[in-house]
Amino acid sequence: MSKTMKAVAKLEPAKGFEIIEAPIPQPRAGEVLVKVRVSAICGTDVHIYSWDQWAQNRVKPPLIFGHEFCGDVVELGAGVKGVKVGDFVSVETHFTCGVCRFCRTGRGHICESVEIVGVDRDGCFAEYVTVPYENLWVWDYEVDPEVAAIQDPYGNAVHTALACDLVGARVLITGVGPIGLASIPIARRAGAQQIICSDVSPYRLDLAKQFGADLTIDVRTEDLVTKVTEATNGAGIDVLLEMSGNEKAINDAFKCLTNGGTASLLGIPSGPITIDLATAIVFKGATVLGINGRKMFETWYQGQALLQSGLDLTPLITHRLPLERIGEGLELMKAGQCGKIIIYPDGSGL
Amino acid sequence: MSKTMKAVAKLEPAKGFEIIEAPIPQPRAGEVLVKVRVSAICGTDVHIYSWDQWAQNRVKPPLIFGHEFCGDVVELGAGVKGVKVGDFVSVETHFTCGVCRFCRTGRGHICESVEIVGVDRDGCFAEYVTVPYENLWVWDYEVDPEVAAIQDPYGNAVHTALACDLVGARVLITGVGPIGLASIPIARRAGAQQIICSDVSPYRLDLAKQFGADLTIDVRTEDLVTKVTEATNGAGIDVLLEMSGNEKAINDAFKCLTNGGTASLLGIPSGPITIDLATAIVFKGATVLGINGRKMFETWYQGQALLQSGLDLTPLITHRLPLERIGEGLELMKAGQCGKIIIYPDGSGL
Amino acid sequence: MSKTMKAVAKLEPAKGFEIIEAPIPQPRAGEVLVKVRVSAICGTDVHIYSWDQWAQNRVKPPLIFGHEFCGDVVELGAGVKGVKVGDFVSVETHFTCGVCRFCRTGRGHICESVEIVGVDRDGCFAEYVTVPYENLWVWDYEVDPEVAAIQDPYGNAVHTALACDLVGARVLITGVGPIGLASIPIARRAGAQQIICSDVSPYRLDLAKQFGADLTIDVRTEDLVTKVTEATNGAGIDVLLEMSGNEKAINDAFKCLTNGGTASLLGIPSGPITIDLATAIVFKGATVLGINGRKMFETWYQGQALLQSGLDLTPLITHRLPLERIGEGLELMKAGQCGKIIIYPDGSGL
Amino acid sequence: MSKTMKAVAKLEPAKGFEIIEAPIPQPRAGEVLVKVRVSAICGTDVHIYSWDQWAQNRVKPPLIFGHEFCGDVVELGAGVKGVKVGDFVSVETHFTCGVCRFCRTGRGHICESVEIVGVDRDGCFAEYVTVPYENLWVWDYEVDPEVAAIQDPYGNAVHTALACDLVGARVLITGVGPIGLASIPIARRAGAQQIICSDVSPYRLDLAKQFGADLTIDVRTEDLVTKVTEATNGAGIDVLLEMSGNEKAINDAFKCLTNGGTASLLGIPSGPITIDLATAIVFKGATVLGINGRKMFETWYQGQALLQSGLDLTPLITHRLPLERIGEGLELMKAGQCGKIIIYPDGSGL
Repeated sequence: MSKTMKAVAKLEPAKGFEIIEAPIPQPRAGEVLVKVRVSAICGTDVHIYSWDQWAQNRVKPPLIFGHEFCGDVVELGAGVKGVKVGDFVSVETHFTCGVCRFCRTGRGHICESVEIVGVDRDGCFAEYVTVPYENLWVWDYEVDPEVAAIQDPYGNAVHTALACDLVGARVLITGVGPIGLASIPIARRAGAQQIICSDVSPYRLDLAKQFGADLTIDVRTEDLVTKVTEATNGAGIDVLLEMSGNEKAINDAFKCLTNGGTASLLGIPSGPITIDLATAIVFKGATVLGINGRKMFETWYQGQALLQSGLDLTPLITHRLPLERIGEGLELMKAGQCGKIIIYPDGSGL
Repeated sequence: MSKTMKAVAKLEPAKGFEIIEAPIPQPRAGEVLVKVRVSAICGTDVHIYSWDQWAQNRVKPPLIFGHEFCGDVVELGAGVKGVKVGDFVSVETHFTCGVCRFCRTGRGHICESVEIVGVDRDGCFAEYVTVPYENLWVWDYEVDPEVAAIQDPYGNAVHTALACDLVGARVLITGVGPIGLASIPIARRAGAQQIICSDVSPYRLDLAKQFGADLTIDVRTEDLVTKVTEATNGAGIDVLLEMSGNEKAINDAFKCLTNGGTASLLGIPSGPITIDLATAIVFKGATVLGINGRKMFETWYQGQALLQSGLDLTPLITHRLPLERIGEGLELMKAGQCGKIIIYPDGSGL
Repeated sequence: MSKTMKAVAKLEPAKGFEIIEAPIPQPRAGEVLVKVRVSAICGTDVHIYSWDQWAQNRVKPPLIFGHEFCGDVVELGAGVKGVKVGDFVSVETHFTCGVCRFCRTGRGHICESVEIVGVDRDGCFAEYVTVPYENLWVWDYEVDPEVAAIQDPYGNAVHTALACDLVGARVLITGVGPIGLASIPIARRAGAQQIICSDVSPYRLDLAKQFGADLTIDVRTEDLVTKVTEATNGAGIDVLLEMSGNEKAINDAFKCLTNGGTASLLGIPSGPITIDLATAIVFKGATVLGINGRKMFETWYQGQALLQSGLDLTPLITHRLPLERIGEGLELMKAGQCGKIIIYPDGSGL
Repeated sequence: MSKTMKAVAKLEPAKGFEIIEAPIPQPRAGEVLVKVRVSAICGTDVHIYSWDQWAQNRVKPPLIFGHEFCGDVVELGAGVKGVKVGDFVSVETHFTCGVCRFCRTGRGHICESVEIVGVDRDGCFAEYVTVPYENLWVWDYEVDPEVAAIQDPYGNAVHTALACDLVGARVLITGVGPIGLASIPIARRAGAQQIICSDVSPYRLDLAKQFGADLTIDVRTEDLVTKVTEATNGAGIDVLLEMSGNEKAINDAFKCLTNGGTASLLGIPSGPITIDLATAIVFKGATVLGINGRKMFETWYQGQALLQSGLDLTPLITHRLPLERIGEGLELMKAGQCGKIIIYPDGSGL
């Protein structure tokens, strides 16, 4: 095995990235070395690339970024359990402390000192990456590697959607980026009766239709509350999956929520928002759930079961690029004209 | 039986009230006539008395107001079940339609066409009042009539508190009016480990101490987040019972909420508020519950069981007046220098 | 309107029935008169027909029996709400007292003094029947009347299945009579990953396959535990829907249940059974749920939502007869060579 | 530090034990060495001592037994997190695999390949014992070491009781050995309205009264169903905590359970039992929960919070012995004339 590898790194605290030749990392105790087979670009990568306010506050160069991926285990550190060289794995990207009260009560997704691969330590836009063995998801059946590469956003969708009781529910998904889109077949397979999606991008609303949305609403030209009220015969929606983080979308969506309804919030507003708590939540007796990451590993088991039941994520994937051309992918993401963009570190599979 | 009765009525769309001689109402089919034994003043009565914006939008004079009370059943309309003349009763003040999907699924507290006694139809500041038999709570053991008269706010407290898992919980109650105060012994008996209360009224914070609060915070002079962080050794609170409707209280309280915590919202902000949803709810994986009224009648069964276990509400009651002097009570309420004010329609019991 | 009607009655405490000319009943206060459009035969009707031990203990002749049906509202008694003449309705067959603590907490399905139409009072094997308005389910969209007639067993299936979390679950249904069969598409639409069915009737196992079972097991010739273990790669089942009431089926099914699994029990053993509680339930940390009737009316809303999502119950229906030939239907049921048998009181629709 | 230690060992597959001088064990990677401060005798130890059928099947001599204890961390193996030398700890006695689907979904208490200290590997009836760091519960406040030593049975009680909603509940505890006894104050602090206990030992029923039981029933001379029915005015119990494993107790207790009630089963019958599932569970719509071990570590957090709220376990402890006299303790346990028996390895504290 060569001693260096190709990697996409942020070397300076500034916009951009470089493709470097980096040392292949060594797995420490409790870690494994994974040879990356396929990775994918997340919105977070675009923040790091663009070096926006969030990135400046959080990221400490030098850093190899990227966190959505799958690969093959090639080396085990000391004390590793439940995995062996040759296993094909996806990776839970939130590395938890294991000893806080959240970790110790099966709630690692809200660990108080989480570390994210590709953000807080070197990530997957590279040929190799090290990860704690506890974070591995070993596939014990044949799975499409491109699907295996996008388990992080898929898991967000599974977590957000399955936090609600969906059997027979009327569901509104505000914001159909990749996570919102993945929520459509999840909600359908969990029994949703009606799935309505809203966004400002016709491109994404078209994808929503392909994923089986019963109604799509372009909120640039249509009024969400009016359209949802019509579509539900005045009943409103039972479940809101909020994926936009947009203030108006949030306010309008709560107006659509029926008494006793449930809102699952994954979208992150860019700052404080103004909301009428009394009518949105209190009088309605609504339940509002904040969603962070993926339940470890309940979300993964649920997600895999749905895949094995036939849920097809492949329409989410719209572009494929070799690692060298990742810059094109990052720019496409900024423009919003894509679903998931897949990266092949070695150009194979293209 | 005389044909008329003394009653407190809003006759004109303006501030104030009149004490009138009104006809004793007749129970229709499904209704009973209750001779009021004890009633109590609610903040809502002060809104009607003061004729504020809310009252002007909602109330249609002439109206006998008042909705917190207990009394004796003196006459049954046709088709009444489960109650007999002579029964001593409290009354669920939300009269539900019985046929909407919320009513038909055991969720009458969020009925889509609820009618409130003393707001939407004649109420209890009178010698007699009619109510649907379905709304009666028959006491089958000896209960203090003053306690029986305040089951409406007590039930709000039971509903709000018991919506959360309180065993071993660190609890913050923001706003200790009568409902917030009643929440203290409820939370304690349901297993709360630590109960912290905040308010702007030293009078009410003193009452909170009497009810057993572990810590009271006067947010006029003390910083809520700092004090709660200290008191919980940095852990924050597991459960928030929001009773204030105050924007700053709500924002600060959510800062105190631990990851995975639950916030039960009963307080009604006077308008939209600005809140940082991402840090308050989303990242934390928090659960937020809107609370309206009382679960019919789960809340009543729970409340009675707690009373029978020894929960003592009598310290809530700070003043007692005959019906003729209700104006003094309404002014005391406006000044905030009281707990519950009890009204005796016939002056007996004083 | 004629003053008499054709009806199927048990007149004497003995095997059999008579087709009589009975007075058309009059709706009392709170009741409506329904003209029966379509009815269906339940196993309970066979007990009454056969006059077995259960029937002798429970049924007091004279009685018009039958309880699964739909029809048109033709007359309203006093005080009826939420329904009008001409409405097409199905009927919740458990008439609850409305005043016990179960009824008053949204749990009428376990009312302590329930009365069942066609068992405790005159039923639907007739041209007309009276029912309390609270028990009506008004269809507000076009529904197949034969499907509307079998909402009672369908509701049992909905209640039993949806008591469990089915998303991604491996499900075993022991006993595929009509309720077990209906559970198959319900479980599928609620997200089940794998559905395994067992029975002793090849006829019914064939129907199970038509409803989409992934695997059917004929326990006369195959070992349940062996087959389920194989089919689940040793994982066992997450959810058991017990519809057989059979001692061996129950014991074997619990052996298949995975740690932390859920068993929903609807089947009624004919007497006490012997079971190894420690290994079946305790060590596994299993959850066992007793199921009775249908949640009023949560089950109905769920069931309707699934029908509107496309769930098709019509393959359940295998025979159609006019009222005069109901005896043939009762004998077919005894032989077990049928799904649901539909009865048309006026012979129309055949 | 000496290289050997005093220990209580089963050396031969036969009744009895020996006190030996054993090597002090060395912590492997991920383990710590604990110097035992206080231990306690469990019924399981009596099985091992007596060498009954269960012990013969499970235990492989030579083995140092004992699993209830607390102590001081004196040495850390490689890779240990969240604990340091000098910490005072209790120990979760179920050592889980960490990689099965139960462990990976926060349900280690039903791990499919659990190992129990003092049963499957050397235990705590010794001066030193090694345990995985993940199993440590570090006390961060001053706690009575005798209370710290009995967290295993106390945790069983916490797990069993808090699996049910206890606020306002009428509770029956069948079997008041140490776990049943500990359940009394737990249920009380979690809001139980009425607590009834049954047993065959007047000694233990007396202890139940000391712990605050409202009613104790000696089922040798009193009929459980009659007494419970009287005590609950015919309502029956809402919650059953089954701690006896006795067939008659289980059957009678289910007769006492109200519709919609919850039964939490911890007791282990010695073999299959006969039960009328239909009336005990199905018709009632009951919920039955199998309980195994302690939730890791939710149960521990709950238990500690209750202790910090003032729950006093010390009345459970009835005897204290030095390690050399453990044989007396084992015989006392067989006779049933004790609560918890505490063992001091070095005789200090006596």
